[in-house]
Amino acid sequence: MAKTSPGHFFEDYRIGQVFRHATPRTVTTGDRALYHALYPSRFALTSSDEFARACGLPQSPLEDLAAFHVVFGKTVPDISLNAIANLGYAEGRFLRPVYPGDTLVSESEVIGLKQTSNGKSGIVWVRTTGRNQRGEAVLSYARWVMVRKRDPEAPAPEAVLPELAVAVAPEALVVPEGLDFERYDPALAGSGHLWEDYAPGEIIDHVDGVTVEDAEHMMATRLWQNTARVHFDSGARPDGRRLIYGGHVISLARALSFNGLANAQLIAAINAGAHANPCFAGDTVHAWSEVLDRALTDRPGVGALRLRLVATRGPQTPGELRDEVGKYRDTVLLDFDFWALIPMRG
Amino acid sequence: MAKTSPGHFFEDYRIGQVFRHATPRTVTTGDRALYHALYPSRFALTSSDEFARACGLPQSPLEDLAAFHVVFGKTVPDISLNAIANLGYAEGRFLRPVYPGDTLVSESEVIGLKQTSNGKSGIVWVRTTGRNQRGEAVLSYARWVMVRKRDPEAPAPEAVLPELAVAVAPEALVVPEGLDFERYDPALAGSGHLWEDYAPGEIIDHVDGVTVEDAEHMMATRLWQNTARVHFDSGARPDGRRLIYGGHVISLARALSFNGLANAQLIAAINAGAHANPCFAGDTVHAWSEVLDRALTDRPGVGALRLRLVATRGPQTPGELRDEVGKYRDTVLLDFDFWALIPMRG
Amino acid sequence: MAKTSPGHFFEDYRIGQVFRHATPRTVTTGDRALYHALYPSRFALTSSDEFARACGLPQSPLEDLAAFHVVFGKTVPDISLNAIANLGYAEGRFLRPVYPGDTLVSESEVIGLKQTSNGKSGIVWVRTTGRNQRGEAVLSYARWVMVRKRDPEAPAPEAVLPELAVAVAPEALVVPEGLDFERYDPALAGSGHLWEDYAPGEIIDHVDGVTVEDAEHMMATRLWQNTARVHFDSGARPDGRRLIYGGHVISLARALSFNGLANAQLIAAINAGAHANPCFAGDTVHAWSEVLDRALTDRPGVGALRLRLVATRGPQTPGELRDEVGKYRDTVLLDFDFWALIPMRG
Repeated sequence: MAKTSPGHFFEDYRIGQVFRHATPRTVTTGDRALYHALYPSRFALTSSDEFARACGLPQSPLEDLAAFHVVFGKTVPDISLNAIANLGYAEGRFLRPVYPGDTLVSESEVIGLKQTSNGKSGIVWVRTTGRNQRGEAVLSYARWVMVRKRDPEAPAPEAVLPELAVAVAPEALVVPEGLDFERYDPALAGSGHLWEDYAPGEIIDHVDGVTVEDAEHMMATRLWQNTARVHFDSGARPDGRRLIYGGHVISLARALSFNGLANAQLIAAINAGAHANPCFAGDTVHAWSEVLDRALTDRPGVGALRLRLVATRGPQTPGELRDEVGKYRDTVLLDFDFWALIPMRG
Repeated sequence: MAKTSPGHFFEDYRIGQVFRHATPRTVTTGDRALYHALYPSRFALTSSDEFARACGLPQSPLEDLAAFHVVFGKTVPDISLNAIANLGYAEGRFLRPVYPGDTLVSESEVIGLKQTSNGKSGIVWVRTTGRNQRGEAVLSYARWVMVRKRDPEAPAPEAVLPELAVAVAPEALVVPEGLDFERYDPALAGSGHLWEDYAPGEIIDHVDGVTVEDAEHMMATRLWQNTARVHFDSGARPDGRRLIYGGHVISLARALSFNGLANAQLIAAINAGAHANPCFAGDTVHAWSEVLDRALTDRPGVGALRLRLVATRGPQTPGELRDEVGKYRDTVLLDFDFWALIPMRG
Repeated sequence: MAKTSPGHFFEDYRIGQVFRHATPRTVTTGDRALYHALYPSRFALTSSDEFARACGLPQSPLEDLAAFHVVFGKTVPDISLNAIANLGYAEGRFLRPVYPGDTLVSESEVIGLKQTSNGKSGIVWVRTTGRNQRGEAVLSYARWVMVRKRDPEAPAPEAVLPELAVAVAPEALVVPEGLDFERYDPALAGSGHLWEDYAPGEIIDHVDGVTVEDAEHMMATRLWQNTARVHFDSGARPDGRRLIYGGHVISLARALSFNGLANAQLIAAINAGAHANPCFAGDTVHAWSEVLDRALTDRPGVGALRLRLVATRGPQTPGELRDEVGKYRDTVLLDFDFWALIPMRG
């Protein structure tokens, strides 16, 4: 009996099938230190226990994206080991902060299946939920990937396409219990720009750039226990380059967005995400944001901004996303649509 | 008086001489995070405090190999600064788990000496013991290295060759106090293959490969406070390459072995180890294992597997270790013989 | 309104102006692990909680230079984002150990201003103080940088040149509360050379060299939340090279100085520092020290050594710092003058 896992193929998936993913993981302040070493993150709430306590939390939570990467990484062996492409995300919601000491597990349910027209692969939709040691859901998101078939002759399953919201409704955003911006200190946070200062349509150039090294993205991706071969093995692609995990680009862009969005302290939801072009070591990642929407939450003083965060290869003109036929420009690495929580002027 | 240590030379060693090595080191969850960032380790017991508690331990222990590297690293300034070659390991036993917060010290006793035939160097055997802050031994191993003489004319000492076991006897394996696989969750651990499923002679291809960067192996080796110049200084070798610390390859291979040996949670003993060929940045490390033996331990439900773990440069045919004259193939980096603890089906 | 900070220009500074810098930061054992992974540090007091307790401290403090880098990093967005050159340090004093769990904030006051003769830039002197979560000052230093003017036509301010001491007086050195070398174990610390063994004029070659990688210095510099573009963005300089943060070289050299100064456990003061030449990835950093002075402190058994720590590109003749016209040799990277605390023979 083969002991090494070849991963699953399209014909292995069934609607309703549930995967309890392997390797629970206790996150610690060591993960936070590495997060800060790998991404130029300066958001005060995830940097200082004192700042977090002044905002009503017991201590500084793990970066939301770190929690996302840990939960996501566990799904790779079951969901995307034989993936041809990571097609999208939707309905991502951060349900509860993750703190150092918490142990995360991850579970996915197959919610959609559709064979591709050439019959050699299919699209699998899953809804993944990360839970802490008390069984509480900390985040949940839908994701769809194109997966190879083991046997191209295997019959196509009945197509099931899940209905997924274009964006998480503001009413569905979860504000962490206790979060309170009454004593918020904008100077310490690095900017006086609060919820009221951002208007839909506004474009923000985050200015700074970071040239990425192979050692860095591999360390990050391993930290999330993401095992996809293409990130680590220079023999995995014909060009000998190691593809950078898309989540690494998300975290880089989010960290760069501090310069212009310093008070957008927490991510409440992921509406959509596209890895428009591959990223490789040597690329210099820049970022810009567009304010898409603005909403209230059910917590007084806590506003929400819907942001499009775009990562580019090299500095590009902010706001330029697609070419004349609607295709992503080849300098666009990431188009990420999310809701952030930000203090209101009150 | 010279303040910088030139290290010891062959004629400085005496049978029975004891070195209390410098720099005690408190290990923390920061070390664990770095271990996960540097090696693709996914063993549940060293990833999750909850999983460890379900296995009867107070929390997730530090990776056995991390403890080994910390203990080993301290010996370098006294034992191998002037070493020409690291020749072998034997009788390595893990005696007690190391937990974050523990402080490790290291001590070595000279147990063997033999001048080489050309008179310019000699082989030094030491037995090294690592202890925690309570003075309890956490691991112990014998190691022998070829060390330069300061003065080629120095007289040869009487040759003393220690008797070292070819392998640690199963009866000598120490199962950590409290370890209990009664409530073991194979799905969460990542594989249903338990002790009974492995048979001597079985060869397992671990499939995945990792291309190594200089920044990575240097960070790892520094973390273990191993100071051997050849790992860090591109001026140390005529070819300008930095030799990767052999222990880095052991940890890489062990982590890769998860894919096929996910339940081999703990290392109980190191029987032997050979760094067959040097490893450098740019090499892609692959691994395969051979099941050498299978044994019971004194703890019900806890089985032991004796494994040969082989690391190779590039993907190689599993099982092929030596050429027709018995020499290691030049693609073999590591031949590591150890006992692992693994749940029994019960 | 522009949301991204362009940094401040020379004409923005006023004598007496105070900057409360952004992003408080809780330091943890994760930072310590990264410090050990990035620098070959082996000083026992910052490696072992047990050793620190034997020296009268509650636990192992964060490396003084790590605290310095964290405090310094916060100042970059307000002080040196538009700096042309980092000109010097003076009157640096370490006032209180920083422990894992402490949260650091940073504040700077403008204490000097002088427009340069060409009218396009000016020198800004600031005194920066780092404080912990109890508001206690942990370190303080003066620093001066040459900063661009936004508008070359802006009028020159009245020149104010602060009086800064050439060196911190021994009487002003702060010995951490409780520090006591009565039970100091030199063997465990790695050397028998104590305060009495060092004499002014003595030159120590630290022998070892470390070849630096881009991934390493960027991870370090990010960890200190230092955002200066030139360290991260290969597009920031015409030559496409990323300039290594000067503090990275200080930490490398200090760690290398263990080999010869193993008992110089703590830094008590920074008298002066010059980044004589830029350092880039691929450089192999070596170091030598000169004993400049020796002093008593107000704590029995705790001596102070004033040391010049010099980092060089490649191995150079120790003691050779300047050429015949008094200019730093082009192989000199760092000339760092500090006071260290070291046990006395008693």
